[in-house]
Amino acid sequence: MTEAAAARYLARQQAVVESALARRFPPRRDPLRRAIRYALLGGGKRVRPVLTLATGRLLGARPAHTLPFACALEMVHTYSLVHDDLPAMDDDDVRRGQPTTHKAFGEGLAILVGDALLTEAFGAMAAAGAVAADRRVAAMQEVARAAGEAGMVGGQALDLAAQGGAPTLAAVRAIHRRKTGALLRAAVRTGAIVAGAPRAVLARLTAFGEALGLAFQITDDVLDAAEDPLTDGRTDQALEKATYPTVVGMAASCRHAERAGARALAAIAGHGEEAAPLRLLVRRVVERAGSVPAR
Amino acid sequence: MTEAAAARYLARQQAVVESALARRFPPRRDPLRRAIRYALLGGGKRVRPVLTLATGRLLGARPAHTLPFACALEMVHTYSLVHDDLPAMDDDDVRRGQPTTHKAFGEGLAILVGDALLTEAFGAMAAAGAVAADRRVAAMQEVARAAGEAGMVGGQALDLAAQGGAPTLAAVRAIHRRKTGALLRAAVRTGAIVAGAPRAVLARLTAFGEALGLAFQITDDVLDAAEDPLTDGRTDQALEKATYPTVVGMAASCRHAERAGARALAAIAGHGEEAAPLRLLVRRVVERAGSVPAR
Repeated sequence: MTEAAAARYLARQQAVVESALARRFPPRRDPLRRAIRYALLGGGKRVRPVLTLATGRLLGARPAHTLPFACALEMVHTYSLVHDDLPAMDDDDVRRGQPTTHKAFGEGLAILVGDALLTEAFGAMAAAGAVAADRRVAAMQEVARAAGEAGMVGGQALDLAAQGGAPTLAAVRAIHRRKTGALLRAAVRTGAIVAGAPRAVLARLTAFGEALGLAFQITDDVLDAAEDPLTDGRTDQALEKATYPTVVGMAASCRHAERAGARALAAIAGHGEEAAPLRLLVRRVVERAGSVPAR
Repeated sequence: MTEAAAARYLARQQAVVESALARRFPPRRDPLRRAIRYALLGGGKRVRPVLTLATGRLLGARPAHTLPFACALEMVHTYSLVHDDLPAMDDDDVRRGQPTTHKAFGEGLAILVGDALLTEAFGAMAAAGAVAADRRVAAMQEVARAAGEAGMVGGQALDLAAQGGAPTLAAVRAIHRRKTGALLRAAVRTGAIVAGAPRAVLARLTAFGEALGLAFQITDDVLDAAEDPLTDGRTDQALEKATYPTVVGMAASCRHAERAGARALAAIAGHGEEAAPLRLLVRRVVERAGSVPAR
């Protein structure tokens, strides 16, 4: 598969996820449904679900089998953004140039949007009848572990506790691994689990997902630090949050991201051109950081 | 089984749930774990998990098989209480005589406690390896449906929207059925699903769960209305929430609860003395309302 074909594949998967999510939550007049659609269908790069689909494809899974799990990962990711934006958490008014869900619909409804998306994510996986039940429960365990106390929610709690302190690189890494890395890792692993990957393959793809997740979070931090703080009135730096650039600086952060990207590519080096979409995803993540002008 | 034996059985199940939950979240020093234990292990009647265990027992399921699902239902219930108590929702400062989770740990951590409990509930069900995978996914689908947009979270959103209005009895019923009824029904059905109940048995137990859920919510409303509004500064009536007593009055509410209890008993009339614990649960729910002095 050429790089151009890989790019077309990724764009198509993003569109497939987009329309699957829209079908899952068709328009309705009640405020909860409207708020769910507002939060979930507002664009987004759909990195996690595309990772799930691309990993499943690499291992020969049918797209129809991985799609419910891909959508579930995006629903979990969106719930976490909606709750993270709340005033009691990061207190963000703007996301992707639009008012955050609580700004548009009120805090109470935003809390419920997150609760509903998290619940429906597990409902969607449980209902994925085309996938053998034992693979479904394995995938659901994977997502629960990545999203729960030992994963994303725990990372968020560490992040809350770290605000205003002077974090070490080790602390930043620990927060990232749980807050962002765990779900990206789970996106890859879930695709592999649904595909029925043998243990050794799953281990290599886990290493891939971990390295990609780290690269992704570092570049997110770099982009956030480079962003004009005036665009939405606050950045993670303004909140004194634990980020790579605040701890090691911009240039070293970019090098960290590049090294993590190289580790991700090494983990899937045994695959041929059928891994082209995953390789392109890595390249895009790393290049995102490289596009930031040094200052 | 005599009524005394049924009472002993129920007390024992409550204790079993209590210690299983405590084992699932052993003490740790980090704030999230401390807040989870504060919210989850603060007492409570454990009605939902005991219903799951008693239903499973009625159908011959092993207690060890139903226990993870029973605990999951309590975790889902507790998450909903923690989020409902938040300032953007019901804004309650006190629950069971103690400061609510957000009063004790802050709003940010309280949101995360709810998120963690909801996620871990699904994790616990997915990990219940002694139960066949197809029954696990069926039970998880059941809980997701009851807790999600069409169930509890949707009911909560209706409740938010109804505040301050002049609700009809039909509106109150619709809110109750989703907000409280759905999870109680799911507690019964989950026990039956894990036990592998045939379709006809599941249908009767569903009718039982629905009637019991309705009786339970009406008596909750009656108790809330009878409560001295000064004890915690607010009642549902103070919030102008849709409740049975505000719509049909206290006496009629008690009659509604009694009739729902009678329907619940009728649904399990085909069972013998092995259903004594379920019958005792119904009686306790209905008598709770009867204990309120008329005024």
